[in-house]
Amino acid sequence: MRIITISREFGSGGRELGKRLADELNFDYYDKEIISSIAENRNLDKIYVERALDNHGWKNIPIAYRHSFAGGSLMQSAQTALLLEQKRVIEKIAQLNKDCIIVGRNADIILEKYKPFNIFVCAQMEYKIDRCVKYMENSEKLTHKEIERKIKSIDKNRAKIRDIITGSPWGDKSAYHITVNTTNWNIKDLTFAVAGFVNCRFRR
Amino acid sequence: MRIITISREFGSGGRELGKRLADELNFDYYDKEIISSIAENRNLDKIYVERALDNHGWKNIPIAYRHSFAGGSLMQSAQTALLLEQKRVIEKIAQLNKDCIIVGRNADIILEKYKPFNIFVCAQMEYKIDRCVKYMENSEKLTHKEIERKIKSIDKNRAKIRDIITGSPWGDKSAYHITVNTTNWNIKDLTFAVAGFVNCRFRR
Repeated sequence: MRIITISREFGSGGRELGKRLADELNFDYYDKEIISSIAENRNLDKIYVERALDNHGWKNIPIAYRHSFAGGSLMQSAQTALLLEQKRVIEKIAQLNKDCIIVGRNADIILEKYKPFNIFVCAQMEYKIDRCVKYMENSEKLTHKEIERKIKSIDKNRAKIRDIITGSPWGDKSAYHITVNTTNWNIKDLTFAVAGFVNCRFRR
Repeated sequence: MRIITISREFGSGGRELGKRLADELNFDYYDKEIISSIAENRNLDKIYVERALDNHGWKNIPIAYRHSFAGGSLMQSAQTALLLEQKRVIEKIAQLNKDCIIVGRNADIILEKYKPFNIFVCAQMEYKIDRCVKYMENSEKLTHKEIERKIKSIDKNRAKIRDIITGSPWGDKSAYHITVNTTNWNIKDLTFAVAGFVNCRFRR
């Protein structure tokens, strides 16, 4: 079984890269599917689960929770319970024993023992803003300034959750096998480049 | 003409990757050759030039020099003169109009207008120390602690010089096209992965 994890800055195109890479390599693909599983297992609304995990309130969880997270002991916070459920869902994906790509959610750390190939995707801020503008739904009209704030806030939250779970810095180059900068790349072209790279890794 | 630049942490295997990549892609290769050119042009000893550029004293050069460097105005420091000579040598390499790989020396910034493909090579500290032990000459027996200090000192100096020349942080992932972590990779295997990646980039 080969596992690829993709961590990414918001707006960098990491999700598109993951989806295309899964098609190119014929791997299973997990992203929003993880949220759906959590919602189903816990009998909760998908939107609620996604928001609770992605956007809010982590600043209030003390670092001490990291240890309880690692040890699996009793949690009080609903959000921490969701993080634990997410961990279980990701571990179950690995137990399916099929080639897969998992986007986000610190799967690189959670599945460390399976020796995944870990990719980090980043881009320059202007490029990320342009991408967000391009893919933004009509209902959500934001100015460039507002988009930049949103990008920074989401990424800050991702860094915070990574810190809670792993104690290691998010986006630190020494934690991933490759870090890909999508600035001025067409994600479709980039997919072939990354696929070749991954194939070399798994062939050795 | 295609230009690849390789920036790297000391001990990460970036130089070996560059050399192998040049062989694999049939590109010209520049590393120590740059030092030799500077020494020849300035009628100086090669060892002196290398040490002056790589290891000493940059902390004493005020940030204000950055502007004089960019503008090319008169310099007072012998070391700054060497940096300028290095810049000229690197520009001359590009003017040869042949596919090439240049290791280190901020060639990615100096040759920005040629749109080079920029690679950063990093590794975890333990791996870098092991590599240094493996390749250390018998005459230079250092303890692991001393090697770690040396690695940190050389990289700190590289960051300092980059700051003087460009004002941008060294090793920052958004400044390079890909950042490759060589930890637990055989550089020979990695070369094929990177070569494929580079080929995709230049084909598009």
